[in-house]
Amino acid sequence: MELVLATRNQGKIREIKNIILKKNLNINVLSLEDFPDISHIPEPEETFEGNALYKAKYVCEKTGHVTLSDDSGLEVDALDGRPGVYSARFAGDKASDEENNRKLLEALKDVPFERRGAQFRCVMVLYANTKDYVLTQGIWRGKIALKPEGNQGFGYDPIFFDENLGKCAAMLSIDEKNRVSHRAKALEKISKLIKPFFEILF
Amino acid sequence: MELVLATRNQGKIREIKNIILKKNLNINVLSLEDFPDISHIPEPEETFEGNALYKAKYVCEKTGHVTLSDDSGLEVDALDGRPGVYSARFAGDKASDEENNRKLLEALKDVPFERRGAQFRCVMVLYANTKDYVLTQGIWRGKIALKPEGNQGFGYDPIFFDENLGKCAAMLSIDEKNRVSHRAKALEKISKLIKPFFEILF
Repeated sequence: MELVLATRNQGKIREIKNIILKKNLNINVLSLEDFPDISHIPEPEETFEGNALYKAKYVCEKTGHVTLSDDSGLEVDALDGRPGVYSARFAGDKASDEENNRKLLEALKDVPFERRGAQFRCVMVLYANTKDYVLTQGIWRGKIALKPEGNQGFGYDPIFFDENLGKCAAMLSIDEKNRVSHRAKALEKISKLIKPFFEILF
Repeated sequence: MELVLATRNQGKIREIKNIILKKNLNINVLSLEDFPDISHIPEPEETFEGNALYKAKYVCEKTGHVTLSDDSGLEVDALDGRPGVYSARFAGDKASDEENNRKLLEALKDVPFERRGAQFRCVMVLYANTKDYVLTQGIWRGKIALKPEGNQGFGYDPIFFDENLGKCAAMLSIDEKNRVSHRAKALEKISKLIKPFFEILF
């Protein structure tokens, strides 16, 4: 049995393969690295759910295999959930992490710390060519910091402050982040459904 | 643990309760009969997937419990998949089964038997207030008969001909229908995911 991860991100591939190996699922885990013909996957939808589902369907149709996709981003309370699906391109189409962070700090410059609530949200989809699928969500609540701190991670990690840990996400080691992150939570849930999902297909 | 069926249809309630009881899932199965305040559930979407998901979310939000919903209908090849989500109202908003059947036979009057391929399709959704969900599909392929036959079942059963069985759906006993129907197939799959789904929630 094959499972294709709809990503080329080496970090994600390693993390997911690890979890599946630990569960002894007897599934051969592939990724887009094994399908060089699939170049760019569109993300045309206005929600994480829509984009994750779109990507999973797209890769499943191209490869014929069960596919696992994800979509995620940052939702800021004071901005009514923005940047959301536009997280990676908040400051423009090819914006760097630093430019996106700067734009977000600017947008919140008059918002006091107690009203800077935000969450990272991740949606994962496990999709088969029978059109059956599973969708899980993971949420990581925090606050937007007043200034960047830390140099781990990526994206908005330097300005996303976890109040329980008293640190910005960019100050966490990979292991610390994997205990609390939105992606880890969505993955933990969906990974428990991989085996029963394969069983309904055959 | 509670599971609410997003239906008042006694036949569906009995069928689903039966399957869950057989699986010893230790789940208390409720239905809309237990929530008289929920009167009419909208079906505003253009796809079975959309409507089943809408209904599941709606009932989950109103009751706070994990919800199982379904949406289904008939897709006729020669009509590009119509009546689809409009199956129950093909001949008008309050159309009877007989009126819908008559309208469909009329629409296909110039289509020879070999080109009258059609399918019943059922989409089921299992939805939790964490916004995690599972969606399964069941398809029952057949042909639109030249005239109605049989008096079991409901909807388009009298004009839906199963070529393997050599009978219209309305000629099948409940047990025979439950071995081949779109709803039975979707339910069989989703029922296997109920236990692992509850396990990821707690």
